[in-house]
Amino acid sequence: MKIWEKDIHSHNRNREIEEFTSGKDSKLDLLLAPHDVIGTIAHVMMLESIGLLNQKDLEILIKELRHIYIHEILTNNFQMDEGIEDVHSQIEFLLTDRLGKVGKKIHSGRSRNDQILVDLKLFIRTEIKEIVLIVYSFFDLLLQLSEQYKNILMPGYTHYQIAMPSSFGLWFSAYAESLIDDMLLIHTAYRITNKNPLGSAAGYGSSFPLNRKMTTELLGFENLNYNVVYAQMGRGKMERIVTESLASLARTLSKMSQDICLYLSQNYNFISFPDFLTTGSSIMPHKKNPDVFEIIRAKCNRISSLPNEISLIVSNLCSGYHRDFQIIKERFLPVFDELKKCFSIFRYMLNHIVVRKDILREDKYKYLFSVEVVNQLVQKGYSFREAYQKVATDIKNERFKPLKKNFSHSHEGSIGNLCNQEIRDMMRKLINKFDFEIIQKVIERLVYGKNP
Amino acid sequence: MKIWEKDIHSHNRNREIEEFTSGKDSKLDLLLAPHDVIGTIAHVMMLESIGLLNQKDLEILIKELRHIYIHEILTNNFQMDEGIEDVHSQIEFLLTDRLGKVGKKIHSGRSRNDQILVDLKLFIRTEIKEIVLIVYSFFDLLLQLSEQYKNILMPGYTHYQIAMPSSFGLWFSAYAESLIDDMLLIHTAYRITNKNPLGSAAGYGSSFPLNRKMTTELLGFENLNYNVVYAQMGRGKMERIVTESLASLARTLSKMSQDICLYLSQNYNFISFPDFLTTGSSIMPHKKNPDVFEIIRAKCNRISSLPNEISLIVSNLCSGYHRDFQIIKERFLPVFDELKKCFSIFRYMLNHIVVRKDILREDKYKYLFSVEVVNQLVQKGYSFREAYQKVATDIKNERFKPLKKNFSHSHEGSIGNLCNQEIRDMMRKLINKFDFEIIQKVIERLVYGKNP
Amino acid sequence: MKIWEKDIHSHNRNREIEEFTSGKDSKLDLLLAPHDVIGTIAHVMMLESIGLLNQKDLEILIKELRHIYIHEILTNNFQMDEGIEDVHSQIEFLLTDRLGKVGKKIHSGRSRNDQILVDLKLFIRTEIKEIVLIVYSFFDLLLQLSEQYKNILMPGYTHYQIAMPSSFGLWFSAYAESLIDDMLLIHTAYRITNKNPLGSAAGYGSSFPLNRKMTTELLGFENLNYNVVYAQMGRGKMERIVTESLASLARTLSKMSQDICLYLSQNYNFISFPDFLTTGSSIMPHKKNPDVFEIIRAKCNRISSLPNEISLIVSNLCSGYHRDFQIIKERFLPVFDELKKCFSIFRYMLNHIVVRKDILREDKYKYLFSVEVVNQLVQKGYSFREAYQKVATDIKNERFKPLKKNFSHSHEGSIGNLCNQEIRDMMRKLINKFDFEIIQKVIERLVYGKNP
Amino acid sequence: MKIWEKDIHSHNRNREIEEFTSGKDSKLDLLLAPHDVIGTIAHVMMLESIGLLNQKDLEILIKELRHIYIHEILTNNFQMDEGIEDVHSQIEFLLTDRLGKVGKKIHSGRSRNDQILVDLKLFIRTEIKEIVLIVYSFFDLLLQLSEQYKNILMPGYTHYQIAMPSSFGLWFSAYAESLIDDMLLIHTAYRITNKNPLGSAAGYGSSFPLNRKMTTELLGFENLNYNVVYAQMGRGKMERIVTESLASLARTLSKMSQDICLYLSQNYNFISFPDFLTTGSSIMPHKKNPDVFEIIRAKCNRISSLPNEISLIVSNLCSGYHRDFQIIKERFLPVFDELKKCFSIFRYMLNHIVVRKDILREDKYKYLFSVEVVNQLVQKGYSFREAYQKVATDIKNERFKPLKKNFSHSHEGSIGNLCNQEIRDMMRKLINKFDFEIIQKVIERLVYGKNP
Repeated sequence: MKIWEKDIHSHNRNREIEEFTSGKDSKLDLLLAPHDVIGTIAHVMMLESIGLLNQKDLEILIKELRHIYIHEILTNNFQMDEGIEDVHSQIEFLLTDRLGKVGKKIHSGRSRNDQILVDLKLFIRTEIKEIVLIVYSFFDLLLQLSEQYKNILMPGYTHYQIAMPSSFGLWFSAYAESLIDDMLLIHTAYRITNKNPLGSAAGYGSSFPLNRKMTTELLGFENLNYNVVYAQMGRGKMERIVTESLASLARTLSKMSQDICLYLSQNYNFISFPDFLTTGSSIMPHKKNPDVFEIIRAKCNRISSLPNEISLIVSNLCSGYHRDFQIIKERFLPVFDELKKCFSIFRYMLNHIVVRKDILREDKYKYLFSVEVVNQLVQKGYSFREAYQKVATDIKNERFKPLKKNFSHSHEGSIGNLCNQEIRDMMRKLINKFDFEIIQKVIERLVYGKNP
Repeated sequence: MKIWEKDIHSHNRNREIEEFTSGKDSKLDLLLAPHDVIGTIAHVMMLESIGLLNQKDLEILIKELRHIYIHEILTNNFQMDEGIEDVHSQIEFLLTDRLGKVGKKIHSGRSRNDQILVDLKLFIRTEIKEIVLIVYSFFDLLLQLSEQYKNILMPGYTHYQIAMPSSFGLWFSAYAESLIDDMLLIHTAYRITNKNPLGSAAGYGSSFPLNRKMTTELLGFENLNYNVVYAQMGRGKMERIVTESLASLARTLSKMSQDICLYLSQNYNFISFPDFLTTGSSIMPHKKNPDVFEIIRAKCNRISSLPNEISLIVSNLCSGYHRDFQIIKERFLPVFDELKKCFSIFRYMLNHIVVRKDILREDKYKYLFSVEVVNQLVQKGYSFREAYQKVATDIKNERFKPLKKNFSHSHEGSIGNLCNQEIRDMMRKLINKFDFEIIQKVIERLVYGKNP
Repeated sequence: MKIWEKDIHSHNRNREIEEFTSGKDSKLDLLLAPHDVIGTIAHVMMLESIGLLNQKDLEILIKELRHIYIHEILTNNFQMDEGIEDVHSQIEFLLTDRLGKVGKKIHSGRSRNDQILVDLKLFIRTEIKEIVLIVYSFFDLLLQLSEQYKNILMPGYTHYQIAMPSSFGLWFSAYAESLIDDMLLIHTAYRITNKNPLGSAAGYGSSFPLNRKMTTELLGFENLNYNVVYAQMGRGKMERIVTESLASLARTLSKMSQDICLYLSQNYNFISFPDFLTTGSSIMPHKKNPDVFEIIRAKCNRISSLPNEISLIVSNLCSGYHRDFQIIKERFLPVFDELKKCFSIFRYMLNHIVVRKDILREDKYKYLFSVEVVNQLVQKGYSFREAYQKVATDIKNERFKPLKKNFSHSHEGSIGNLCNQEIRDMMRKLINKFDFEIIQKVIERLVYGKNP
Repeated sequence: MKIWEKDIHSHNRNREIEEFTSGKDSKLDLLLAPHDVIGTIAHVMMLESIGLLNQKDLEILIKELRHIYIHEILTNNFQMDEGIEDVHSQIEFLLTDRLGKVGKKIHSGRSRNDQILVDLKLFIRTEIKEIVLIVYSFFDLLLQLSEQYKNILMPGYTHYQIAMPSSFGLWFSAYAESLIDDMLLIHTAYRITNKNPLGSAAGYGSSFPLNRKMTTELLGFENLNYNVVYAQMGRGKMERIVTESLASLARTLSKMSQDICLYLSQNYNFISFPDFLTTGSSIMPHKKNPDVFEIIRAKCNRISSLPNEISLIVSNLCSGYHRDFQIIKERFLPVFDELKKCFSIFRYMLNHIVVRKDILREDKYKYLFSVEVVNQLVQKGYSFREAYQKVATDIKNERFKPLKKNFSHSHEGSIGNLCNQEIRDMMRKLINKFDFEIIQKVIERLVYGKNP
């Protein structure tokens, strides 16, 4: 029986319809269960504070909610009962089933619309924390590798054409710095998420004198989604903004995977991985395929398609809740795990990367230093355009002599001066802006009853 | 003749090819002209500081660059000469043409790749400033309207179904608060943009001892794009991030337009506009069409497609510059103007909006207050689920009595407590984070020679 | 052990890596199992014909393959063994395990690249057949409803504004005709799919003298993907084209769902559904939400995002197989089922639709016939523009008299002349172009040994 | 003054608003002018046939319309007058201005909604014809090059890894065959477009006894869009379907461009182009950049984003006309020209391609023939898996001997048997299905008065 069903007779609702509208909800919803309990604890504490629950009811409810959290959810014993629509209903059902009438009191001043929003926000907050940690460790590895290989030169390309000298120090560090801009987006997504929607109910607030600041404080949100219409309008929008930030991280991995697929090819042959990390072919015995990076590239490209998918779902919908938002959950909830796995596998692979040291010896890289020669002429007094014409003519007439010694780049961010410390400092500063301790503090206070 | 052409004979390059590869560059590039001059002034000042230009050359160059800025660009007399590929070449060409050999010296330690990046960044910085100002004025109008109409009730909908009471105060204010989250994204896009790429050259730095911190300071950037490979990797990525933030603003307008199109329809009839602001039909004499809002909706939806368009262009490209990035400019440069026009027209329209005052009198809205009745029963001691069942039964048996007086929502963000001041404060705080004065200061220092 | 593993020692390959690269393959791959067997039967028959298998080996292999098809796959007893990478390996493994050395002979002249292509093509062929049947039955219902309600008028809207008279006859039939254009796309996708890739191996053909025409004929393909490089290039492209055609059907459902959500709202109130087919609210006892149609709308919008997702994955990949293609399967294989369910639920709902008969009585629809009045004036001798001005002036001065009798539209496709028979004929003609019998014939011949 | 303006006083409508809602219409609309005249000629002929115009009026109107077509549009003298909203209004205005009252009669039984649909359909028909011709000539060139270079071997890659022998014959021909599948989509888009919407008026038909079959025949449409609601619903949908088919062609070019960018790089060095067709660098004197192909790749990727852009605009719009559709025109009308230019430049480039003949001599390609060796072992009696293990072991122990002679692939579509004739036949058969002569016949009959 659904919590919105009005009498017993109506509930022989078509089963096929039910399955269709519930979709994959029940399984995915388990991801939200701990957050639903926490949101509910905060909500009932607030209800008691405004006199809609007495203290005894509150104690009974909190005791049971904490039990569900600690002894059912944390121990993986929490499940959706047959015919229960979603995790919100399941928890309300358990309370009513176990505690009787008092369980029926908890939905005052709340709708499933703001309840699912709170759940999503607490879920996102926790998931972003995990993403940030894994990104930071990946970032750290990139900088380590950059330092380790800072003296190994490689060709730099533009237009897929051999252009100028680059180095593995530069290459690894470039992707580290890329993660900083991505992290700025993650931080913004976190801040946009980290606002309290509770009290917006179905999107138009409640006639109860709810204390929204109290739930904001209990749940550790940075602020309120004040306007109740906007709180609900954030549905779909929040998911889009969060996936845009995840997609930015994903694109950094995807691009680096693309580089690696090229560098692993025999035509580049810049790097390699041990045999046990590459894949063979069912017909070509000599192949060592970079499958892991192709899979990462494709998965990350797919992640990058999510914001557009969400946009197609919500485009041109007027304000107010629409059931369409539920469908967004089906791909949104698992995306964090997908991305975390990509980072973790990528890190595992990079721990085994083998960098070739004598790449530039090959004849085809002989013009790599032509700009350096131009620059030397400039330092001898040529104007830049004259020097450029001279070297171009030399190359054409095959009189060009490559230059491989006395090569030095010294300015910030160049081969000889990677500024990895500055890059590390930028990231650290950014990471410190996330107030992740609040997540644990909220759990300790609401679930374990510790004082703040 | 192109600046990269090596001898006179090669330049009978196919004209069709040239037109094809230049594309709409020459016209669009005019938007970048002032920024190219400013970036060049900073670059030559830095070249002089490291001894690659003498002081006299510097003075000559700066004088001419300032002349171009003040007397050609600002007065709309700056043009692209026939056969000149882009704005960078045009300015270098003018300098060489007017000053002789000294003009050929300015490209030392620079590539068109970092030059266009600087131009884009200075352009974006300026455009975001204008966007922020127009958004803020639109935001202000929304809050004014929210206050003005805070006592006018309207139905709130979920699933397009009449749900609960809402108000014009809530509705206007919801879109104001929406702009705050959008603005957070704009601010992040601004910060990601506001880093100095100069010195990254073609993406692999330079063998000259460039002083990148000096150009960072001269151009008022918040920081450097340190790693030179990453600086170039930001191309495409930066445009995507910026358009994602613009798209977020656009979606707020699009959604509000959708509401307005519904509210203007005879089936809702909540608002109207004076005749001179609506459009007729070529065959139906009674029509008053909301064309302006349909056009805004469509233009904003189109803007929201831009990040995906950019992604399709750059997806799976390896690191390093590709000419593909140029094509992004064609739709990226004009998007700021498109969005500004949408805001400005929308604001003009809202200044003439007429709100209907007696909407809720219609019979179809009689159940609008059913939740309030449920809540009153709860306050009389019913549990929520019991009260819900009782009201549902009353509605079914047609015994339900609507409630229209003693209606009060008092919690934060609800009809009776809009928290517009809190919303305004959030926006102000956010706006203050943009350090827009730096834009003017840079111009004054580099173009008009004022001391900082 | 993988079929491409070279020795026993290498197979302590990281488990996490394996799981990551296999992904959801093993479960999804079961959908391909019957098709893999059929493709393999055709392949081994061909191998025998060119002397790469002797007749006895062929008989043993075919017997076992048929056994797997009939007694394991059809009875749902077929499973992927632990550690087996994909369905192709599983079937090869079963053969080798049960038949010994002869099982190792089947992969001659074949790669997993053309094998998965064949599987996908046979799978798509079968799925399209099912889609076509369900679409046709949905189409039929729409035309029935169109006939049933052809005399019930409703307002026609443009710009969400009341425009001119329409009818339920027109409305239902419009979506029927929409399915015809969608079906043209499905037919094209079918034809593009229905070409034999077998023999293209890894994308570069084979040095064995394969008889590709024989497998084309055995598998009932319309033609060959001749060029072996193109055969492989079809991967990703084929899925995109197929999903574009499915998306076109999906958008027809999505648009009709959007209409229904509006028509169900109290502000339109054109149609209704029995209580047991609508959904309630957890806090508003009067609500009857159109959840089914919102879910259909969202699912169909999500389906319409698939072609772009595929494009983002394959954009800018050079020719030749990439492992990225595997990731496409994860959302591609299940999409057929998703769409079929949307059609089946939609049909179920339409069987219960209740159409309101007196819609036009409401005062707000009084101008609905203004064009008819204009037209009557034209028939009395006014020029169109004069008549238009006269009626517009009458409306403005409130002298306009609505016209509700003698209303007749008689031209093709109008209210009074729906041309449903012509529409039905177009669809029938189109359906007849699909040669679906071949699917069954191939099974009978290859699996049950019946002569063609 | 607009044709839908009701009195003189209302037309001091805000100019900014007008500009905003007209957008780029007036310039783009010129592309539609010839088609608007043709559609109007057919419409007035039909009006006369049902008695809404007398024969004399018809003659006067047709004479003037033909004059506009031949002496103003064809000679590029046709322009939009200041303040005229669109091409439809301009032509109606010219007729009224020149012919007086008779000009006001032509809009009977027509709305701008079906008028723009007819214009678009006639425009698309003509543009598709041009696209087909240019694609066919490109296809032809690919097959020529395939024949010319059929004996030049190159490495075939999978996963960017050297895999098996391929050839330039295979490579060129693969893209030729790709165009066949694309052309199937173009043909379907053509058929979906080529249906008569005239008579659907604003989307709900007309009370005049219009003869829609007559205009269908006069305009050479294959059939009617019967249902008038669907005729209008085709707006947006038709553009999406057409751009999906153009995008398929574009993706073929984009992929081939990607191959070429790689093959031109020094790391592959498979092909080259004369200097005058490549581009230099502003700082690196040795560079020869493949800019043309990068621009084609990016432009084609952008074209491939159009269907999604259109989807975002129309997603979740209910049935009936919305002004949003106008915005689609802004990028839709020019896309044909963009794509034609890409084909024409690409063809120009391919005419100058230089293919390197001794690619396989390089040491890194030595394992290219390993599968051939496996296959030879199979033909000597090894099972495939045994042969595979043997060769893999030989490679590992560096005992593998490459095989370069006696290399032969003979099956259909392989290096030794390209089947270019079969591919050519498929394309010819497909091209013949387009009945393009009708386009010219319609012009001759309606504009030049020739009998059919």
